[in-house]
Amino acid sequence: MIVGLMEKYTIGVDLGGTNLRAAAITVSGKMLEKVSGETRLDAGREAVLDDIAASIRRLSDQLGTADLLGVGVAVPGFIRMDEGVIVGSNNLPELEGVCVRDEIEKRIGAPVILENDANAAALGEKWMGAGKDVEDLVLLTLGTGIGGGIIYRGRVLHGALGMAGEIGHMTVVPNGNPCGCGNVGCLEKHASATAVEAMAYVLGLGEGLTCKDVYELACQGNERARMAFERAGSALGIALASLINIFNFPLYLLSGGMLPAWEFFAPAMMAEIERRSFTFRHSQTRVEKALLGNEAGLYGAAYLPLLAQKG
Amino acid sequence: MIVGLMEKYTIGVDLGGTNLRAAAITVSGKMLEKVSGETRLDAGREAVLDDIAASIRRLSDQLGTADLLGVGVAVPGFIRMDEGVIVGSNNLPELEGVCVRDEIEKRIGAPVILENDANAAALGEKWMGAGKDVEDLVLLTLGTGIGGGIIYRGRVLHGALGMAGEIGHMTVVPNGNPCGCGNVGCLEKHASATAVEAMAYVLGLGEGLTCKDVYELACQGNERARMAFERAGSALGIALASLINIFNFPLYLLSGGMLPAWEFFAPAMMAEIERRSFTFRHSQTRVEKALLGNEAGLYGAAYLPLLAQKG
Repeated sequence: MIVGLMEKYTIGVDLGGTNLRAAAITVSGKMLEKVSGETRLDAGREAVLDDIAASIRRLSDQLGTADLLGVGVAVPGFIRMDEGVIVGSNNLPELEGVCVRDEIEKRIGAPVILENDANAAALGEKWMGAGKDVEDLVLLTLGTGIGGGIIYRGRVLHGALGMAGEIGHMTVVPNGNPCGCGNVGCLEKHASATAVEAMAYVLGLGEGLTCKDVYELACQGNERARMAFERAGSALGIALASLINIFNFPLYLLSGGMLPAWEFFAPAMMAEIERRSFTFRHSQTRVEKALLGNEAGLYGAAYLPLLAQKG
Repeated sequence: MIVGLMEKYTIGVDLGGTNLRAAAITVSGKMLEKVSGETRLDAGREAVLDDIAASIRRLSDQLGTADLLGVGVAVPGFIRMDEGVIVGSNNLPELEGVCVRDEIEKRIGAPVILENDANAAALGEKWMGAGKDVEDLVLLTLGTGIGGGIIYRGRVLHGALGMAGEIGHMTVVPNGNPCGCGNVGCLEKHASATAVEAMAYVLGLGEGLTCKDVYELACQGNERARMAFERAGSALGIALASLINIFNFPLYLLSGGMLPAWEFFAPAMMAEIERRSFTFRHSQTRVEKALLGNEAGLYGAAYLPLLAQKG
């Protein structure tokens, strides 16, 4: 390596329930290297933590520690930001109650910043994605559930404990479908990929269809498959209209596995927003697709040490 | 006046559809003087602007301009913060399109900061009221409509144009009552004083009852009057649960003319919040009465110049 010629970089890790990925990204947002593997939940908590440390080390060994400015890690679940502890995670129950930040710091001998995965994705889009030109945005991730991240003045809005942004648990149908969170009618029970699958069954499309199956049926012109996406779009529109009225932010982004079905859910979504938000009608508000796909979390995680340096 | 012994002060003006009030308040939050009069809408735009300037001058003449740090004015309606223009106001349509900030500055010869009235009330509660001990809070004002103010890190969250905080227009009943904003099922159509009056009629209590009449019936044990407040409480609970899930702030305040009926709407409200927000159940979240009553806007307006000085 030619010392001094390389740009400084950070490492972002995205720990999912299935995949563990890490990337080295320069301060100007260029991805230098990426590694990925499985999240070995079966092997237990220590193995997962060791794997995270190993993925970081693999990158820093290759690129050198001299130019490494810091490490950020995106994890699914609630994080008590002050303590770096995961207090709840549906995808990684093995890590609940674990001070993941300290455990990784101990292993790599350097400071680590933890962030919720949806927040990290929102931050990644703000840094290098669809939100590059704004300071304030809301991101919704449409997958098995619906996650949310709120960026205000270029940073994650965390709230008191770091639990802010749970947009998937906004009530959109007061007497709607029951949710694991205790509520009924949560957005994620009416607009996630899982919700589309449930609606496809109700609409008589058959049992065991995945959201992708329903999408393909919709592409073939199946009216009931299209209706499932339209209903999801309406629920999204109700939530987004309220969010626009609450925040008056310039940008609302959607990402996640359901994004390819945009053409089927977006028209109903935009119609609800148009009807339900005078703020939308009276200001320049964009509702758009996120751009970074499943790399948003990596970018966001890598951006964390840079933000921390800004103070 | 004994020069140098007096604390520096600011002047806050609260311009309502009915009343025009102004107060001189010291930097440590002590109200020195208060003047109030009517908002002379009939006399036209110029008269209202002149009256605002006169009320400011009355206070500064009395207390001296040497110690006056600035002037803040709370107005009902949407303000384009960058321009100081009221872009829309149900209560003061005469001032729509008027650059109220510049008009007052011209008259008093000193800088003026404009703020939406609900935002100012939220800021007042943060400075000297129920929110003194926190940096982040949401205030809902329960009156003819429902206003909202969001305080984040000690300041008003304005959004792109200053239109943020329109909590009264969150959708709580997707197919609910039509609202003047174009939506159906807005919070303010299901939980404001006006909504309570409409529900009292639907529940067979008779025509033309004011919210205060319904409150007195509830006090006398009238079950249908109590039901009207319970339903308002449920709608408030649905909105507050979503807000808590979105913000994870430590404090949510309620103020306005409906506050005396707290005992009748709060139980249903808290039950909905408890059920619909796991964040509420897993964090220290307070939902409380605001403390400053109709002086909150004066305090908030007076606080604006101090906040601006902090930069």
